[in-house]
Amino acid sequence: MSSVFSEIPGGINAPAGFLSGSLYCGIKATNLDRPDVAMIRSVQPAVAAGTFTTNRVKAAPVRVSAAHLRAADVRVIVANAGNANACTGVPGIENAKRMARAAAQALGLKDRQVLVCSTGRIGVQLPIEKIETTITSLSHSLVSDGSAAAADAIMTSDTVRKEVAVEVQLSSGPVHIGGIAKGAGMIDPNMATMLCFLTTDALIEKAELQHALSVSVEHSFNRITVDGDMSTNDTVLILANGVAANPALRSGTDDFERFQRALDHVTLALAKMIVDDGEGVTKFVEVHVNGAASFSDARRACEAIAKSTLVKCAWFGGDPNWGRIMDALGYSGIKMREELVDIYYDGVLAVKGGLASETPAEMLRKLVAEERFRVTVDLNLGAAEYNVFTTDLSTEYVELNMGE
Amino acid sequence: MSSVFSEIPGGINAPAGFLSGSLYCGIKATNLDRPDVAMIRSVQPAVAAGTFTTNRVKAAPVRVSAAHLRAADVRVIVANAGNANACTGVPGIENAKRMARAAAQALGLKDRQVLVCSTGRIGVQLPIEKIETTITSLSHSLVSDGSAAAADAIMTSDTVRKEVAVEVQLSSGPVHIGGIAKGAGMIDPNMATMLCFLTTDALIEKAELQHALSVSVEHSFNRITVDGDMSTNDTVLILANGVAANPALRSGTDDFERFQRALDHVTLALAKMIVDDGEGVTKFVEVHVNGAASFSDARRACEAIAKSTLVKCAWFGGDPNWGRIMDALGYSGIKMREELVDIYYDGVLAVKGGLASETPAEMLRKLVAEERFRVTVDLNLGAAEYNVFTTDLSTEYVELNMGE
Repeated sequence: MSSVFSEIPGGINAPAGFLSGSLYCGIKATNLDRPDVAMIRSVQPAVAAGTFTTNRVKAAPVRVSAAHLRAADVRVIVANAGNANACTGVPGIENAKRMARAAAQALGLKDRQVLVCSTGRIGVQLPIEKIETTITSLSHSLVSDGSAAAADAIMTSDTVRKEVAVEVQLSSGPVHIGGIAKGAGMIDPNMATMLCFLTTDALIEKAELQHALSVSVEHSFNRITVDGDMSTNDTVLILANGVAANPALRSGTDDFERFQRALDHVTLALAKMIVDDGEGVTKFVEVHVNGAASFSDARRACEAIAKSTLVKCAWFGGDPNWGRIMDALGYSGIKMREELVDIYYDGVLAVKGGLASETPAEMLRKLVAEERFRVTVDLNLGAAEYNVFTTDLSTEYVELNMGE
Repeated sequence: MSSVFSEIPGGINAPAGFLSGSLYCGIKATNLDRPDVAMIRSVQPAVAAGTFTTNRVKAAPVRVSAAHLRAADVRVIVANAGNANACTGVPGIENAKRMARAAAQALGLKDRQVLVCSTGRIGVQLPIEKIETTITSLSHSLVSDGSAAAADAIMTSDTVRKEVAVEVQLSSGPVHIGGIAKGAGMIDPNMATMLCFLTTDALIEKAELQHALSVSVEHSFNRITVDGDMSTNDTVLILANGVAANPALRSGTDDFERFQRALDHVTLALAKMIVDDGEGVTKFVEVHVNGAASFSDARRACEAIAKSTLVKCAWFGGDPNWGRIMDALGYSGIKMREELVDIYYDGVLAVKGGLASETPAEMLRKLVAEERFRVTVDLNLGAAEYNVFTTDLSTEYVELNMGE
């Protein structure tokens, strides 16, 4: 860990001034015994920041929340699982607004003070009356230790709850950051949606909060890939209520840097939990490319490797097949010179100057047989680097995603 | 078929003046009972054209053949399976040249009159002495009915021989085009390489032949995708020896058009055979995108759908999951308006204006349960269109590609 921050229990309720909870509404076709509507509320005025999917097909709640995010005092996040409210047209937008309105009316807020999220089946309208009733009840039953319940409610095919919190030491005293997430899984016939809700009691202005969040997301959620498909609903939101009463965080200061590092830790921890819990995943692989001619090349190289079906199948089989990695580099479109490429598995040289190294194949096989390993590619062209966290592609993944 | 051309037996020997054959050399680690070196020879002076992988990691034979293709009179194609001679550095280039030299010396030709191809394992040097001996023997044992033997020798994990020939009626009389190919399969731990060798007895100048081949490849081999990984060795070659003594084909003439259509038929037939015989393939799917704002958008949309792991898993399961198609369109980066998108399965409307159509889900499921179907996306934005031929992603595919 770090002397700057340490992990603590409590999830999204670890920061002061937040209530949360979940209720069973009955939206999901399966998992009928699990709660499916979650809510987080700041009891004090709060600012919000968010990042959303860049998919051009955006779910209705993404469009509504992006608009509501511009409000000065955002208090509530409400989310449902089981239905993505995507590809639902004008009625879908209206339903997303009705979700916000139900929470606003129950809590005496304006509609735009509520952010909404959905995950689940695409192309089906929400059972909005049921959801409104549930949201009204839930608004009145939020608790100060509801983080786990909220984390459970947004799970779809996730097998483990994703929740983390840290205490950060600032010069004025401690502040806290908490988060819950749901992962890159899907339920039939749904999308892999990634949702993450963060809370903090730090005092920070909206623009600074958005900046900090964007930086953290770039180094965490934007660097994970399980199957390469980006969902219509991906959303990361953070509420900051200033209850810790620290001097407002300003970028460039030591305190801001500490906050950023702690937030980076929270988002990266949640991102790694998502990869680890990916459907049918048997390997957690970090791909690191350095020596690239440009940042964009480093990223494209990482993504070509991490998205190659053949590379991922080889990992599933524990096969240190560097030829498939060379091949992916070759078609990624990056600047490269084959004869300069070095490839390592967990630091052990597999390819030197584009040719097989002298490392015995048996040694490489042992490394790739592990559940976690790192692939490092050195293009030996420049100074740019990038990394992603990814998985293998297993027969179980296919079975889980073949639908009905 | 067509009144312009008709399919005939004989493969690459259907055109007059070609000899072919194969021999067992013992390059493959498995399939030890199968021939693994193939050769095609024009007994008369011939011109050649070719298209090669655009992967920046190019196998040694690709580099050598691209250079030899510039020769005025190319007579021979020699290919081995079991070793790709890729990522083999300077010795690999030397070995590719030695393959050409072995054939040239045996047949009294110059080295540059011989084109070489390899497919198989990456990163291992060829057993060049054995191969030279085999090539020498094979050069002296070519026959006028060796097409099937040559087609068999280039197969790796292919399960069916890929061979086709047509007779084309020109104004001056018939000419012939023949072809063999190997497909998008791989053997442990190899690359999916696509090789195609074509012959014709038509009289045509080199530049015109290259033009005709490029057009045909663009509409056939460039439009198939099984796993989206482009190999280091992909090669399509054609030899034209003019034995039919037709007036030289010139673009813009009716005869050239007939030749082009026949060549298109041969390459598309071989390309479809490759998809059909893809590893672990249970579905053959044509994806057609029309109404795109640009040709480039139409192609990107097709490729995003055809390469989506989630879409392909759904097809494997017979699940008409159009949400995943909408999602792939959304992240493909194309110009689109969600509310204008129509999607059809085999002509039956699944999505109308971005929303679920009224077609019963059961009817769509029946269509996607078939072994062959077509997905049509109408973006309703412009007039550009594109199509690709692709497959599902099955558990068997993963098992076949997990390596050792």
